Amino acid sequence: MKINFTPGPSQLYVTTELHARMAFKTGIPSISHRSKEFEKFYEEAVNGLKELFQIPQGFYVVFTASATEIWERSIQSLVASESLHFVNGAFSKKYFETAQQLGRNPIKVEVKEGLGFKGVPVPQSNPELIALTHNETSTGVSWPIDFVNSFREKYPDAIIAVDAVSSLPYPKFDFNKIDTLFFSVQKGFGLPAGLGVWIVNEKCIAKADNLLSKGISVGSYHSLPSLISMTTKNQTPETPNVLGIYLLAKVTGDFIQRGIKAIRQETDYKAALLYQALEKSSVAQPFVKDKDIRSQTVIVAETGEHTPAIINALQPFGLYPGDGYGKAKTTQLRFANFPTHSKEQYELLCDSLGAIKP
Amino acid sequence: MKINFTPGPSQLYVTTELHARMAFKTGIPSISHRSKEFEKFYEEAVNGLKELFQIPQGFYVVFTASATEIWERSIQSLVASESLHFVNGAFSKKYFETAQQLGRNPIKVEVKEGLGFKGVPVPQSNPELIALTHNETSTGVSWPIDFVNSFREKYPDAIIAVDAVSSLPYPKFDFNKIDTLFFSVQKGFGLPAGLGVWIVNEKCIAKADNLLSKGISVGSYHSLPSLISMTTKNQTPETPNVLGIYLLAKVTGDFIQRGIKAIRQETDYKAALLYQALEKSSVAQPFVKDKDIRSQTVIVAETGEHTPAIINALQPFGLYPGDGYGKAKTTQLRFANFPTHSKEQYELLCDSLGAIKP
Repeated sequence: MKINFTPGPSQLYVTTELHARMAFKTGIPSISHRSKEFEKFYEEAVNGLKELFQIPQGFYVVFTASATEIWERSIQSLVASESLHFVNGAFSKKYFETAQQLGRNPIKVEVKEGLGFKGVPVPQSNPELIALTHNETSTGVSWPIDFVNSFREKYPDAIIAVDAVSSLPYPKFDFNKIDTLFFSVQKGFGLPAGLGVWIVNEKCIAKADNLLSKGISVGSYHSLPSLISMTTKNQTPETPNVLGIYLLAKVTGDFIQRGIKAIRQETDYKAALLYQALEKSSVAQPFVKDKDIRSQTVIVAETGEHTPAIINALQPFGLYPGDGYGKAKTTQLRFANFPTHSKEQYELLCDSLGAIKP
Repeated sequence: MKINFTPGPSQLYVTTELHARMAFKTGIPSISHRSKEFEKFYEEAVNGLKELFQIPQGFYVVFTASATEIWERSIQSLVASESLHFVNGAFSKKYFETAQQLGRNPIKVEVKEGLGFKGVPVPQSNPELIALTHNETSTGVSWPIDFVNSFREKYPDAIIAVDAVSSLPYPKFDFNKIDTLFFSVQKGFGLPAGLGVWIVNEKCIAKADNLLSKGISVGSYHSLPSLISMTTKNQTPETPNVLGIYLLAKVTGDFIQRGIKAIRQETDYKAALLYQALEKSSVAQPFVKDKDIRSQTVIVAETGEHTPAIINALQPFGLYPGDGYGKAKTTQLRFANFPTHSKEQYELLCDSLGAIKP
């Protein structure tokens, strides 16, 4: 069996294929997105996510085609001019660039890859939205929840937007401290790619309405007002990825059954195991030095010239790490630590890594 | 067996489920969209469509999440100010409204539902894009190819955009007379929803580049320049609906095997059969009176007060028509005539319809 550790699209969740087979068997991919049957599992997906993440009243869940789309839609619907971006890698940078491409005037605070923002000065400005990439999939840097929570007080008027693409369902966010949160399903949820999940509160809706009332275009079918007006009917503006929403409903249900607490504990256990193995390894080491900002869900190893040897040593066990990102493609390896990756697989991975000598 | 005649999402193509099973078996839903394996079936999908539709050199194929998205992207990337829309139903109207929502100044020529545009005066203007909805899914009106082809001469500078959402793969377009063509896969292709296919030529690319050079925002990750730069590498800007692209490659291959000529002939045969049955029926009649503009792929029946009786009479045979659209929900029925619907199914449908007495 091949175990895929690429951080997205990653290994499917253990139940995904079974749910997909059932979907085809019962005709889900050809039902109308305006039918009661569709509305039923749409609602199941939304309510499941609200239960799993303990999302309070006043928040809404809508669906897009990807998290990349949510970078665009969140700027389009929530920012007239200025967003403030914390950039520490490829994906946080792309969010920033999205705002530029849409003709806004974003500003950024940037640090080198692998670093955090502790002690880094923040510009004196009045941004409409603060863009926080909770988990930089490219480098394996993740922020302590305290850091995420620190913005509300500093910027009481701004919308706090959290991109948690490659960390959810692991992190436990405080929904009093953030206004919008999003992710895509092909990472932690172990589902086929092609669906983004966007969670927004009333403050976001009011902001989009405010832009609209000023005559600013907030987009068309996937503007926030359009998405909200349809989600309250358990529908989408367009014909969506019906199968994707069905599978999300089912796997979210499985996560609830398993228990989010157990998922978090297992994630911590597996991450500790791998970081320990990397600390001890003579062919690899953790790329992120500061333990406070090490991701629990995307673990990046500095592997340098040993990269091919490590890949070759792991393959006989069916273990397939992800390449490093961008310019680190051949000098780093990335390991997704998602709910689908079992403790046994991580133990095998760490034992196998430990046995590799230079 | 249940045979679904709703015009999208409709009955899956006969081979779709098998391809999906193979996809899960071989790990397609969890491969990286930056892998060689992905590029291979991306290219297979693109080349398959070029062969099937006989698309000439100088045209490119890109993917979005839906045809609804292409309404937005085509306006965003190809129109600075004025698009001209031919509106004769709900979907052509939505394309027009998309341009309004994006802050453009679209104009429209509008006729009542069920009618065509023969003899209708066209405004004297200089639109950047002409939006033609080839097949109005809401009413079953479809345009003769000659009508589509008549615009090039009248508007030599404009981009001729054809929405063929619910008619492809049936119609045979002349790519010398149009600049961009699009559809979504959950209709004629019988695939799970969540993928739009957008075909564009060099004129479209030049137009988008021209807007960009003037400082006009053409969007972000799914701007036409961004999509084109990635499709030439057989990739997408974002993590796309990987499974959807794989299935499209496979079903397009099946269509090529079967032969587009055979598909067109069978479509004509089945459409003739149903229109004939409706002409003879004492409980239903064709909604579109003018035979020249009757759709071959979405056949709409005026059923009035007999609607529930017809539905009840067809159900024992496993035949499920689609509801009428919008305000015609209870007074019309719609029948998709796609490649997945067999001659035998259509013969059964027509016989069953013929037996219903008021």
